[in-house]
Amino acid sequence: MIDIDRIRADTPAASRLAYLHNAGAALMPTRVIAAMKGHIDLESEIGGYAAADRESDRLEAVYSSVARLLNAAPDEIALMENATVAWQMAFYALPFAKGDRILTAEAEYAANYVAFLQVARRTGAVIDVVPSDASGELDVGALERMIDTRVKLIAITWVPTNGGLVNPAAAVGKIARAHGIPYLLDACQAVGQMEVDVAAIGCDMLSATGRKFLRGPRGTGFLYVRRALLQQLEPPMIDHFAAPWVSRDTYQLRDDARRFETWENNYAARLGLGAAVDYALEIGLGPIEQRCRLLADRLRNGLATIRGVTIRDLGRTPGAIVSFTMDGCEANAIVSSAAAAGITIGASHPSSTRIDAELRALPPVVRASPHYYNTESEIDRLIDLLAGLAPR
Amino acid sequence: MIDIDRIRADTPAASRLAYLHNAGAALMPTRVIAAMKGHIDLESEIGGYAAADRESDRLEAVYSSVARLLNAAPDEIALMENATVAWQMAFYALPFAKGDRILTAEAEYAANYVAFLQVARRTGAVIDVVPSDASGELDVGALERMIDTRVKLIAITWVPTNGGLVNPAAAVGKIARAHGIPYLLDACQAVGQMEVDVAAIGCDMLSATGRKFLRGPRGTGFLYVRRALLQQLEPPMIDHFAAPWVSRDTYQLRDDARRFETWENNYAARLGLGAAVDYALEIGLGPIEQRCRLLADRLRNGLATIRGVTIRDLGRTPGAIVSFTMDGCEANAIVSSAAAAGITIGASHPSSTRIDAELRALPPVVRASPHYYNTESEIDRLIDLLAGLAPR
Repeated sequence: MIDIDRIRADTPAASRLAYLHNAGAALMPTRVIAAMKGHIDLESEIGGYAAADRESDRLEAVYSSVARLLNAAPDEIALMENATVAWQMAFYALPFAKGDRILTAEAEYAANYVAFLQVARRTGAVIDVVPSDASGELDVGALERMIDTRVKLIAITWVPTNGGLVNPAAAVGKIARAHGIPYLLDACQAVGQMEVDVAAIGCDMLSATGRKFLRGPRGTGFLYVRRALLQQLEPPMIDHFAAPWVSRDTYQLRDDARRFETWENNYAARLGLGAAVDYALEIGLGPIEQRCRLLADRLRNGLATIRGVTIRDLGRTPGAIVSFTMDGCEANAIVSSAAAAGITIGASHPSSTRIDAELRALPPVVRASPHYYNTESEIDRLIDLLAGLAPR
Repeated sequence: MIDIDRIRADTPAASRLAYLHNAGAALMPTRVIAAMKGHIDLESEIGGYAAADRESDRLEAVYSSVARLLNAAPDEIALMENATVAWQMAFYALPFAKGDRILTAEAEYAANYVAFLQVARRTGAVIDVVPSDASGELDVGALERMIDTRVKLIAITWVPTNGGLVNPAAAVGKIARAHGIPYLLDACQAVGQMEVDVAAIGCDMLSATGRKFLRGPRGTGFLYVRRALLQQLEPPMIDHFAAPWVSRDTYQLRDDARRFETWENNYAARLGLGAAVDYALEIGLGPIEQRCRLLADRLRNGLATIRGVTIRDLGRTPGAIVSFTMDGCEANAIVSSAAAAGITIGASHPSSTRIDAELRALPPVVRASPHYYNTESEIDRLIDLLAGLAPR
């Protein structure tokens, strides 16, 4: 059972704002703030190198925390500047040749799709989009039928940015494993919102961010790479941390996932990330997921009663991202009205998920994303506000 | 004239530590700390997206500040996680084919050299090291003689990490310009220590870090790319910020240097970087350079009087990095003795600059790097300490 009062006391802004924008960047708990500011103070007192040395145990523990969050081993984790760089370092490490196929899903995120396009142009690989089933989830049967020896990667977004869809990540993993195809999972919106178990999912690579449902700092992310694949992947770019310069003409790639990192880092942000992961683990991802869904479902139920509102969420059991449109009222106008009423929500533009948006002829959609620290009454405030905006 | 008292008041730790490790990570001025902590507070009050929106003018101004520091235009600047990523995004964007030549210098930094080796292995390009002249600087005449049509890049480190050497960056630029060869300059140790003028140098690309002589945060860096070259360079990796997804099968690379960035960033660190650049510009890079050299020369003069000490600095007019060894006393032991006496210095290992270190048979060297905020008496304290450690 989550102790909401204690958690809201750890989140001072929660008393002033109905903050329902956790799919953008969540409010950080005070201990995340304290971890960052404390380290910046230490750097100012003894210098940036000495500060990192002094905190080396805590910095090392961030890898263990992330590993525990994902049910992985610490040496399978790389800490990165953001989820995009994490995803890129894995994706661009994979070799593709003319005719190789990359399978992805309809709601794939723009950041990833433009990278597919670049690599397709460079190598002659082709991108094939797995259709969705009637519920809007990636169609696992269709995926199975699309597999052939030319498929060199399955790369999908688990929880797309533009709504409640939760793709069947583990069912995809079963197929990837059965056929020995590398599987790269973008878990940006999933990590911190739900239980993530890379062994159960069967993914080979997983990328995620700190700032969203994990409630960590901006400018943090991480990459998981399964140990068995790790040694086969040469990072697209290296420095002497990833690959020490061992003799004049040779470098030696690190054995662990840190071969995807560079030497220099923002250690304050890393400690903030570690504090955020530990905070989530203390509460428990099971209870977090349960409460996220409870609040999101409450919002969807309320929205369903408002005339002119169309809920845009897909999938059998949508998660904490609630997407909708309202007749006669543009998404940005709704976001502004909510902000004026002390309610923070966001919008998702079609260009973030172009294929899905075009298939469904989506305009920009409003995106409200509660988290476990939100209250039922905050959800109801948003519902009331929207009811007041609705056409009569 | 630099107002040392005011500057030291802006650097509280300067009263407690003789901090001579500015080639590692300098002490940050209070306003850099304040810029970061203030933004973290704002993020905790209104959320990470709203905070970046509210500070968008100041965030945009960071590009102008960096541009002013380098005598470049703001659209030629990309802000990056660190100098290595800045350098990599430029280097790995360049096309190489079998037999193409990369010219570099003897004291090239390990991070860059392993990247050369990776690309050489991938493409069949070859790395040719321009010899140094009798003073230890890159031999400009030799460089000129090495130029042929197969040279596709000149990439050197202006101020190497392992000592006082200041390579003749502008003379190299003249040759690069005359032959139309792209010129990538690693200015990590130069920026913040001396005046940097990309037009006068004639470099096409320049990378630098925030944390060293600029006195900015760890985990910050930037890349300059000359506008004329910019449009020809496709970044090695892209996301939808670098290259918006404009239709199902096309992306459109940004026109400006931000095509080398990704969407998500650590905005607190960026504001800290901006504050550091503005602080340096207010003091003036001319006076900064003058005082750095004055203090470094004082240290070198003092070291020259200590029995058993060998100064390892190269070049005609060495800069603010003072490198030396002492008979019978390992570099790390000297660093520890200094730390115990409240003096922060560092060491540079041969693997950071392997070619130079092997040519000179260098052991790990002590690296002391004063900055304008240091005092003559701090320099003298280090000299006295070393005299006490010296063999009798």
